[in-house]
Amino acid sequence: MTFPAPLTGVVPPVCTPLTPDREVDVPSLLRLVDHLVEAGVHGLFVLGSTSEAAFLTDRQRALVVEAVVGHVGGALPVLAGAIDMTTNRVLDHITSVTAAGAQAVVVTAPFYTRTHPAEIIRHYRRIAALSPVPVLAYDIPSAVHTKLPAPLVLGLAADRVLAGVKDSSGDLGAFRELVNGARTHAGFGVLTGSEVIADAALELGADGAVPGLANVDPHGYVRLYRLARAGDRTGARAEQDRLCALFAITGVGDPARMGGSSAALGAFKAALHLRGVIDCPATAEPQIPLSGEETERLGKILAAAGLL
Amino acid sequence: MTFPAPLTGVVPPVCTPLTPDREVDVPSLLRLVDHLVEAGVHGLFVLGSTSEAAFLTDRQRALVVEAVVGHVGGALPVLAGAIDMTTNRVLDHITSVTAAGAQAVVVTAPFYTRTHPAEIIRHYRRIAALSPVPVLAYDIPSAVHTKLPAPLVLGLAADRVLAGVKDSSGDLGAFRELVNGARTHAGFGVLTGSEVIADAALELGADGAVPGLANVDPHGYVRLYRLARAGDRTGARAEQDRLCALFAITGVGDPARMGGSSAALGAFKAALHLRGVIDCPATAEPQIPLSGEETERLGKILAAAGLL
Amino acid sequence: MTFPAPLTGVVPPVCTPLTPDREVDVPSLLRLVDHLVEAGVHGLFVLGSTSEAAFLTDRQRALVVEAVVGHVGGALPVLAGAIDMTTNRVLDHITSVTAAGAQAVVVTAPFYTRTHPAEIIRHYRRIAALSPVPVLAYDIPSAVHTKLPAPLVLGLAADRVLAGVKDSSGDLGAFRELVNGARTHAGFGVLTGSEVIADAALELGADGAVPGLANVDPHGYVRLYRLARAGDRTGARAEQDRLCALFAITGVGDPARMGGSSAALGAFKAALHLRGVIDCPATAEPQIPLSGEETERLGKILAAAGLL
Amino acid sequence: MTFPAPLTGVVPPVCTPLTPDREVDVPSLLRLVDHLVEAGVHGLFVLGSTSEAAFLTDRQRALVVEAVVGHVGGALPVLAGAIDMTTNRVLDHITSVTAAGAQAVVVTAPFYTRTHPAEIIRHYRRIAALSPVPVLAYDIPSAVHTKLPAPLVLGLAADRVLAGVKDSSGDLGAFRELVNGARTHAGFGVLTGSEVIADAALELGADGAVPGLANVDPHGYVRLYRLARAGDRTGARAEQDRLCALFAITGVGDPARMGGSSAALGAFKAALHLRGVIDCPATAEPQIPLSGEETERLGKILAAAGLL
Repeated sequence: MTFPAPLTGVVPPVCTPLTPDREVDVPSLLRLVDHLVEAGVHGLFVLGSTSEAAFLTDRQRALVVEAVVGHVGGALPVLAGAIDMTTNRVLDHITSVTAAGAQAVVVTAPFYTRTHPAEIIRHYRRIAALSPVPVLAYDIPSAVHTKLPAPLVLGLAADRVLAGVKDSSGDLGAFRELVNGARTHAGFGVLTGSEVIADAALELGADGAVPGLANVDPHGYVRLYRLARAGDRTGARAEQDRLCALFAITGVGDPARMGGSSAALGAFKAALHLRGVIDCPATAEPQIPLSGEETERLGKILAAAGLL
Repeated sequence: MTFPAPLTGVVPPVCTPLTPDREVDVPSLLRLVDHLVEAGVHGLFVLGSTSEAAFLTDRQRALVVEAVVGHVGGALPVLAGAIDMTTNRVLDHITSVTAAGAQAVVVTAPFYTRTHPAEIIRHYRRIAALSPVPVLAYDIPSAVHTKLPAPLVLGLAADRVLAGVKDSSGDLGAFRELVNGARTHAGFGVLTGSEVIADAALELGADGAVPGLANVDPHGYVRLYRLARAGDRTGARAEQDRLCALFAITGVGDPARMGGSSAALGAFKAALHLRGVIDCPATAEPQIPLSGEETERLGKILAAAGLL
Repeated sequence: MTFPAPLTGVVPPVCTPLTPDREVDVPSLLRLVDHLVEAGVHGLFVLGSTSEAAFLTDRQRALVVEAVVGHVGGALPVLAGAIDMTTNRVLDHITSVTAAGAQAVVVTAPFYTRTHPAEIIRHYRRIAALSPVPVLAYDIPSAVHTKLPAPLVLGLAADRVLAGVKDSSGDLGAFRELVNGARTHAGFGVLTGSEVIADAALELGADGAVPGLANVDPHGYVRLYRLARAGDRTGARAEQDRLCALFAITGVGDPARMGGSSAALGAFKAALHLRGVIDCPATAEPQIPLSGEETERLGKILAAAGLL
Repeated sequence: MTFPAPLTGVVPPVCTPLTPDREVDVPSLLRLVDHLVEAGVHGLFVLGSTSEAAFLTDRQRALVVEAVVGHVGGALPVLAGAIDMTTNRVLDHITSVTAAGAQAVVVTAPFYTRTHPAEIIRHYRRIAALSPVPVLAYDIPSAVHTKLPAPLVLGLAADRVLAGVKDSSGDLGAFRELVNGARTHAGFGVLTGSEVIADAALELGADGAVPGLANVDPHGYVRLYRLARAGDRTGARAEQDRLCALFAITGVGDPARMGGSSAALGAFKAALHLRGVIDCPATAEPQIPLSGEETERLGKILAAAGLL
C-alpha cells in the first residue's frame, strides 16, 4: 500500500504487551492490534513513547514491527518510531523498522546532547535524505526537552523533508500555527498526540490523532473522529468529555512512589488487562507497577466509562 | 587485570576521531590513546559524552572498545559508557562492551522517560545484578535532566551496587557530600567530570578526574593530579588555572550558530587536529562544525598554552 | 456595582502607556480605556503582566488603578493584579488597589521562593480571608515557574476561596479540566489568557478571555466572543484566525537582541501608537525597544489586518 | 564609614526574627545581630533571601534596616537586599534602604519577566547610575531562574558598575571564572553564598562568604575564614566539614510537606530559637512550619555540633 498523504484519522500508539518476565508477548500484541483494527482505527503507530520504545531492546523493537506488520498485512498503514539520541543512531533504527515493513517513521529532535535549532534541521534533512519511507516529526518536549518551533517544522514541510508531525507538546496555540501553516503544504499531516483535546485539535483542522488512551478505548476515539469529521461538534465534545473522564486512569498511580511514565503506561496496560485484551499488565524495567489498590480504583473508572 | 577499587587518577573520556565521512578513524583513535598513555593517564573512559557516544552507532561503539582494549592490552583500565535510555537497553550495551573487553561500565540515570528516584535505584540495582563488570554511576544532569541525589548514590555504594561515580554535575557541594559519605565505603571511587575545578575536587578527597579537556592536554591533568596528591596545593592551583585558560577553547564556537555539544566536542577535536594527534576534526551528525575563523582563534589559545 | 459572578466576556489586560521618560501617561491610558470600552469589552484588567505590572513602581500602580476606576465610573468591572512574591506583600497591594477602587484582584502563586503546593493553598486561603474583594488566581508558569494544578484550583473554588482563574499556561488540556470541574461551582469564572486559542477555550465553556492582543484589536475579540456565544463556530474560527495572523506582531522583535517580554509588550504598544491610541510606544526599563525596521514590519502586519 | 572595597570576610545574611503573629521581632533581631557581631563577623547582609526579604512587606523591610543600622552604629558595614522584579521597583527599595542607612545594596537579575542578557546589563547600569551606594550583583538562579554569566558580571566590574557579586549559584567552575577575572578589577569583591564549599571558594581567592548557616554558627564561619586566610587549609577543611554536618539541619523538614524555602529558613530559625538567640522560630506566610518531631531531630544535630 502507498502511505497516505496526508496521514489522517485515529492512529493509536500501540502498547507493547509484555510477559511476566518482560518479553514481548506477541499473542497479546496481536490481540491488541485486532482490538484496535476492529474498532476502526486508521493506522497503527508502533514503537512510540506509549509503546515503551524507550524501554525495549533493539531485538524487541524489531520483533514488534515484524509481528504487527505481518499481522495487518497492509490493511492499514503502520508507522514505527525510530527513537534514539542522534542522527545516525536513528538511521540504524530506520533501517531495521523498514526492513520489518514499517511504512513511515516517526523521529524526535536529538536528545541527551545540547542541540541548536540549526542542528535539529540538519538532523531531519539527513534522516529524510536517507530514509526509504516518509519521515514524520515527533514533538515531545517532556521527553527530549526541546519544543520543535512551528516555523522550523513548516519549513521542513515546505521542502518536503517531513511528511507530517505528531504533536505531543500540549500547546494548542503552537498546534494551530502548524495546522494553519500546513494548509499550503498538500500531503503534510498534522496529528495531535493529546488524549484530552483531540476534539479541539480536529476542529482546528488536525488531520488525525495519536492518543495513547486509544489503546484502552479505540471505539471512543474512532467515534470522536467521525463525529468531528461529520461536523457534529456537540457529539464530538460529549465523546471527548467521556474520554477525559476515562483519562483519569493515568492518575491512579501514586506520584510519591512512581514516575509519570510508570503511572501512564501502567494504567493503559492495567486497563487492557482488565478488559481482557492482554494477558499481563507488566511494564518494562525500571518502571514501578501499580499496586492492587490502585488497579482496583482504575477498574472502577473503567466500569464507570462502560468499559468493563 | 583486576579493575582498581577504587579507581583513581586521571581517566580521560577519550574522544572518538572520525574520518571526513564520519566513520571511526581507528588509526587516529590509537594515536590519541598513545598520546594519553604516554602522558601518564591512569585509565581510559571510552564511549562517554565526550566520546560522542550519543552520536555513535552500535557498530561504531563496539569498534571503539575493541580497538582501544586491544591496543592497550591491559596496561591500564578501560571503562566504557553504556549510554542509553533505560535498563534493558543499557544491559545490551554492557553485553557488547564487555564482550569487547571493557573492564567497567559507566551508566546514567534513565532519560527520555519521566522517572522517580525509586526507579533510578531499581535501574542501577538490576544493571549491577546482571553486569559482569563493576558499574559506575554517571551523574550528568545537563544530558539526562535528573541530578542523582548524593544519598541515593551513597546508599547504592553501601550496598556495593555501584563501584564509583563520575560527577559531571558541576555542583561541588553535592560532590563534597559524596566524597565525605564515601569514606566509609572502601573501594568506592568518586571522580569529578569537571575540567575547571579538578584541583578543588581532588583537594576535597576525590579519587580522580575524568576531564574532557585531558584529551587536549593530558600532561597538564597528570601534573595537576600528581601535584594534588603530593599535597602541593599551590602547584596544583597554578596548573588548574593554566588549564582553565585553555578551556576557553570550548567558547570559540558561536552559540548563535551551534549547540553546546558542537562547541565543546568540536573544540577538543580541532585542538587534537591542530596538535597533530588526529587526522580530521570532524564531529558526528548533526553537529555544526567550527568555522575557519573559530578554529584560528582556537589555535591562538592553544599556542598561548604552549601546546602548539 | 456588584462584581459579576462569574466574570464573563472579553476582559483586556490593559497596557500601561508611558511617557518618553517612563512616567504613566494618564491621558493615553484613558484614551486606551475608551478605545476598549467603545469596542464593547466586558471588563478591564489593570496591573497584569501585559500592563507591565512587574515593571511599575507602587506609586505608578496606584496611579493606574485610580485613573482607570475614576474614568469608567462603575460602567464595567475593573480587576487589578496584585503581583508580588508572597502573601503579605500581595496583601499590601490588595489594600492599595482596593483603596483605589478595584473590584476584584488577580493573584499568582508565590515566586522567587521554592514553594510547595500546600503553601500555594495556604497563600490563597490567607489572601482570600483578608481581601475585601473577590480573588482570582492567575496561572502564569512562564513568570512564576509553577503551574497551578487544576485540582488545587478547583478545591479552592469549591471552598469559595477563589472567584475565578485566569489561565495563561497555554495548556488547553488542563484548562478543560478547570472548565469541566467548575461546572459544579456556580459563580466561579474560568478565563483564558491566550490570544491564539480563545475560540477553542470559549467552545470548551470558558467564561471569558483576557488576551493582551485585545489592546490592539478589541473589536476583534469582542466579535469573537459574541460569535462563540451565539454558537457560530465557523465565524468565531475565522475571527480567531484573523487575530492569530495579527499576533505575529509579537514576533517582529529580534530574540537575539531582546527578551520575550520586550518583544510582546513592545509590539502591543507600538501597535497602539501606530493606531493613534497612545502617544508613545515606550516600555519600562530595562526592556529593549523595537527598532525602526521592526516597527515598520509591525505596521505592515497591522495594515494587513485592516487596522491602519 | 566608607564601604570596604572590596568587601571581605564573613557577611551573614541576617535572619529576620518574627513574633508569633508575624511582626518583625526587633529585640530578637538585635540579639541576633549581637550574636553575630560578637562572633567577629565582618559585615551584615540584611534583606537577603535568608532574611525572608521575599516575604517581608516594605514597612517591615524598612524597619529591619533601621533597627540593624541604628544598632551597629557604623561598627561594621551593613548591606541591604533590594529584591524586586525590575529596575524601577528595585530603585524604590534602594531609596528606602539607603534612607535607613544601608551602605551598599545587593540586586538580582530581573525576574517574573522573560529577560535577555542585554536587559540584565541595562538593569544593572541604570541601577548603579542612580544608586547613592555601591551595588553588588546577587546571582541566585534558584530564585530568579537566570544564571548571571561570568563574562557579563566581569564586564560590569570592569566598568565599575558593580562593586561585587554574591554567588549563590553553587557552580564553582563559574565562580572560579569570576575570581580569576576579578583579579584585574581592584576593589571588586567576589563572595560565595554557599554554606558547604566556602573553604574551596576562599581557597580559590574569594573575598568572603555570605552563608545563611552563619546565623546559627557565626563562630564556625569566622574560624573557617581566619584559617583559610592564614593558609591553614587542613584546619579550614576540618571546620568546613563540621559546618557541612551542621547544614543537615536544613534537611529535617519533610519535602513531601513543605517547600525548600520553608525547610531551610525554618531550620535556621528553629536553631536560633533552640540556642536562645531569638524568641520565636516562626517564619513568614505562607511557609509551613517544622513539626515538633522535626525540631527535635534538628536539636540533636545542633547538640552533635556542640551548639546546645
